[in-house]
Amino acid sequence: MQSETASIQVLTTVDVVVLTLVDGVLSVVLVQRERAPFAGVWALPGGYIHAQEDADAHASAARVLRSKAGIEDAYLEQLATFSGPARDPRGWSVAISYCALIPQQKLPTPRQGLKMVPVAATGQLPFDHGQILQAALARVRSKSQYSSLPVHFFGESFTLPQLQQVYESILGEPLNKVSFRRKMDELGMLEPVPGQMQAGGAHRPAQLHRVRPEFRLQLALSARGL
Amino acid sequence: MQSETASIQVLTTVDVVVLTLVDGVLSVVLVQRERAPFAGVWALPGGYIHAQEDADAHASAARVLRSKAGIEDAYLEQLATFSGPARDPRGWSVAISYCALIPQQKLPTPRQGLKMVPVAATGQLPFDHGQILQAALARVRSKSQYSSLPVHFFGESFTLPQLQQVYESILGEPLNKVSFRRKMDELGMLEPVPGQMQAGGAHRPAQLHRVRPEFRLQLALSARGL
Repeated sequence: MQSETASIQVLTTVDVVVLTLVDGVLSVVLVQRERAPFAGVWALPGGYIHAQEDADAHASAARVLRSKAGIEDAYLEQLATFSGPARDPRGWSVAISYCALIPQQKLPTPRQGLKMVPVAATGQLPFDHGQILQAALARVRSKSQYSSLPVHFFGESFTLPQLQQVYESILGEPLNKVSFRRKMDELGMLEPVPGQMQAGGAHRPAQLHRVRPEFRLQLALSARGL
Repeated sequence: MQSETASIQVLTTVDVVVLTLVDGVLSVVLVQRERAPFAGVWALPGGYIHAQEDADAHASAARVLRSKAGIEDAYLEQLATFSGPARDPRGWSVAISYCALIPQQKLPTPRQGLKMVPVAATGQLPFDHGQILQAALARVRSKSQYSSLPVHFFGESFTLPQLQQVYESILGEPLNKVSFRRKMDELGMLEPVPGQMQAGGAHRPAQLHRVRPEFRLQLALSARGL
């Protein structure tokens, strides 16, 4: 029997959908491509797997985030793998896509070649990046139903009303306050920040919460949805 | 700036976890590897992406299923992508893994080099196939909470008690009959087979159901779990 090695080389890449809330609006990080194909066009940060240095594709995605968007320490999870002869003009390619969530405070300083755009206003994206973005949005919406995913949009601390507002903006529907708080209790990933209240304008001060250390880089899952 | 092309070639492969119920026991299809590495060892069906003929990695997985296990027309979904320098002794590799569900009636005839093994009894598998199998089992359990996934374990028709039993065996817990039936109604993917009842021993005859044509190769999803 002949060797099974594929005779045409497959390009292996990663693409990362970085989502954040810019003043409450779900937004995605785009970078301007430096070279062909699509030189000068705004796209998701992406790049080749570097087999000589990357421990796995997750490490490739983290490296791409760091080198192309200046982002460190984002919550990062694998989304899906896109593939085929047509998605990249350079040839048959595999793009292992990742979704990253970061708080607005940790966003890189906007600079030439880097911007944050509301997810509904990206316009046409190159390659199949539009499809990858839609997959990320569907994942975040569906996972927010039954997990702690949205806490990764926050920095150090936040109030429960702020967190509820973010869940509502992702899910696109109002949530009942009592059942929302019961769900957060059930997920068990929050703790009050001792002695810290947020003094809030017309409202009475609200307790600030933070994510327990063990849930900072992973999710708390609930068996039943919100 | 230098060309970004990776200097070491990355191997691109697919691996497929084929799950079925053999007399009610959740089982996985294993094939005996014909060549190195791990020649003669039982493993998940897998193989290289053939860029010259495959339309995408999904097509590669379907081709591997057909050529290595004789399985056609299985429900097939992408699971996750495993990667790194250590998982395959041939080099830095990417394995796009898929999960397939087939009814027992559509299983290939057991033959030399092909067997069905209860998922708890596979023993040690080569590569990271043990990890891929565990990912498939976690996916099927979690998706059965809120989707029609388990119907793909059935052939033409089945009764609601049979379907409930399969959900229970996957989820590992008894389900309330009334809420199970309400959930199936809500998913809306079943229809009674006109005039067909199953005459069942000590029980009164039960209506046979089948999956509506539009859900044969895709899932019905429910917003809330079972």
